[in-house]
Amino acid sequence: MNAVRDSDDQAPQPLHDEAWFAARASRGVQGLKAYDPGHDLVAFRRKFGEANLVELGSNENPYGPSPDARAAILDQLHALHRYPDPLGADLKRALATKHGVDTKQILLGNGSHELLMQLAQVFAGSGDDVVFSRYGFAVFALATQAAGANRVVVDALPHDHPHMPLGHDLDAIAAAITPATKLVYLANPNNPTGTWFGRDAFASFMAKVPAHVIVVMDEAYAEMADADADAATALALLASHANLLLTRTFSKAYGLAGLRVGYLIGAPGLVAVMERLRESFNVNGPALAACEAALGDEAHLHWSCERNTEQRTALAAALRARGLRVYPSQTNFVLVHFGARTAQIEADLTARGVVLRPMGGYGLPECLRVTVGNADENRRLLAALDAVLA
Amino acid sequence: MNAVRDSDDQAPQPLHDEAWFAARASRGVQGLKAYDPGHDLVAFRRKFGEANLVELGSNENPYGPSPDARAAILDQLHALHRYPDPLGADLKRALATKHGVDTKQILLGNGSHELLMQLAQVFAGSGDDVVFSRYGFAVFALATQAAGANRVVVDALPHDHPHMPLGHDLDAIAAAITPATKLVYLANPNNPTGTWFGRDAFASFMAKVPAHVIVVMDEAYAEMADADADAATALALLASHANLLLTRTFSKAYGLAGLRVGYLIGAPGLVAVMERLRESFNVNGPALAACEAALGDEAHLHWSCERNTEQRTALAAALRARGLRVYPSQTNFVLVHFGARTAQIEADLTARGVVLRPMGGYGLPECLRVTVGNADENRRLLAALDAVLA
Repeated sequence: MNAVRDSDDQAPQPLHDEAWFAARASRGVQGLKAYDPGHDLVAFRRKFGEANLVELGSNENPYGPSPDARAAILDQLHALHRYPDPLGADLKRALATKHGVDTKQILLGNGSHELLMQLAQVFAGSGDDVVFSRYGFAVFALATQAAGANRVVVDALPHDHPHMPLGHDLDAIAAAITPATKLVYLANPNNPTGTWFGRDAFASFMAKVPAHVIVVMDEAYAEMADADADAATALALLASHANLLLTRTFSKAYGLAGLRVGYLIGAPGLVAVMERLRESFNVNGPALAACEAALGDEAHLHWSCERNTEQRTALAAALRARGLRVYPSQTNFVLVHFGARTAQIEADLTARGVVLRPMGGYGLPECLRVTVGNADENRRLLAALDAVLA
Repeated sequence: MNAVRDSDDQAPQPLHDEAWFAARASRGVQGLKAYDPGHDLVAFRRKFGEANLVELGSNENPYGPSPDARAAILDQLHALHRYPDPLGADLKRALATKHGVDTKQILLGNGSHELLMQLAQVFAGSGDDVVFSRYGFAVFALATQAAGANRVVVDALPHDHPHMPLGHDLDAIAAAITPATKLVYLANPNNPTGTWFGRDAFASFMAKVPAHVIVVMDEAYAEMADADADAATALALLASHANLLLTRTFSKAYGLAGLRVGYLIGAPGLVAVMERLRESFNVNGPALAACEAALGDEAHLHWSCERNTEQRTALAAALRARGLRVYPSQTNFVLVHFGARTAQIEADLTARGVVLRPMGGYGLPECLRVTVGNADENRRLLAALDAVLA
């Protein structure tokens, strides 16, 4: 440490290292590793220049947010010295109206990441079980570990499943629930697999879940699922299942990943308990305004999601035409099997400024997750891939 | 709940209420009440109109941020669909340079509120003691309770203390430390009292603290303390005390309360353990850029702090001239004793559009906390006060 040596007479104490602090941390944090956000994109942007980089590693929305969101931020620039509305009342009202629920059913988060973490912090602890699918969203495991609870990882549907390879096996998840289970995390559609499950399957699952178990349904990509794809949302079952809640985000379909806003919809009693732990200014002021504006521009949302579906279909077809296995997806990314040479292919693509997401951390080292870009980005990805595979 | 009734055949389960969820929550959350942010300012702004409101309840900076901060946000508007830099590398580098420490000693938070909460979450739990002063910053008690640890509240210096009434009693805090103590929270200067302690007193305190106890020094108002006031910062002692850390914020002197950015400076090992729990995108993209820009404009910071000192001195004198007791302060607010009629005075001021912060929640029901506004705001406050007191 470079701080000025103080003039007091004490001998300096030995400078504790990470192990010293970890030994004094909660049991959960002792075993915790931080979320891996992938490549250092800031460094890549400096190296390649933004215009030469094809950033398809983070499932961002290439069409950006509604112009109304940018305008709302401009409107807030005179008030940066003011704390945000601690109630987030305007945004919550707009969300309640959109989803046909009461504002008391909505909790705002600094991204849905914060909400997913705090759900485990509140409802699971040492000796408790938290159940989720293998290849489920990475934050499920982090949240469980941070809370010091047991991770019960249920095998996914097999690689060779005829309809939904690597998808959530809802029957197996239901069967893994025991009296020790406090939380179940589901994602529909799921990241990083892109897989989904339907309305009837989900209703059957919920019928099997005991009332003491809280079911968290992460729907980060819900807006991107095709209407005819039968990807269930928890919304329709909320009225009959108080132990069910869903999380959504402005980071994906709304194109506002930079602003960190997610939300939860659940029973008013659940939201009231979560509100106790929420930091009162957890969502930033310009972000609140931008999300409210974005929510009002349904035309942009639909346009953006339609472009995504077109491009996803085209990109998946182009990758399959190159002999690659592409897993089914109702999101803005596809999971692609590249086989034994995956690490080399990924390195070669990165060297050409094409950033995809390695999947080793998910236990899928022979796959890469490919964000669906716009037409130009996908064209550049395919060109780079052709060069690398040649 | 208004969500659509699902067509499944199950009878609806009874809708669990807050008590049902609270019974299933962690012990800490069971006893937790949310932070009280004061009045509903959004509602007041609608009622009075922003121009007719004198907002002196939240210790915001009336001079606003550096214009460079606004310009930095404009530069980010094209990239709202991108995730923020998960490392916050540029801002951390700028902070490290400013404070003469290593970037590995810096942790970024979604406001220092998040950091103060997570410190207790990581280092204190059931059966552990956390020590802080009566009238210490409200988040200390919340963080301790949320972690399920014991709050050890040490009496402050008495009302009639000749130099620092209601200030931290460092000797008593040191004496309250036992083998069960995991954390000590200090604030210097402290909110809501405005009080502070000096460098020698703090060095003597640290000499008494056993090495197993982590000392958190919240310095949210440090930039506003006069150079000749001898308000200690933890910075000078960091090199000799690895169990010491400090927290700072961009919400006060930097005028960026709307953006929610705070930071911690401590031992690299401590930061590494806290990084495990940090949500990787916990600070929003425009906020990172704005804070880095604000940090570069030292002239604005100094100008703003000088205006604050001038106005604080003038406001305190004007309040004392009206027979009111004003506690000593090195911040952008003053604690003022209004006596038995405090609640009525506060209500009458609010009815005139002058918002101060009631102190009942802090156990100081005969006081109000008055943010130091700019010259115009302070004039309007005094005029309203004269009308109310008449």
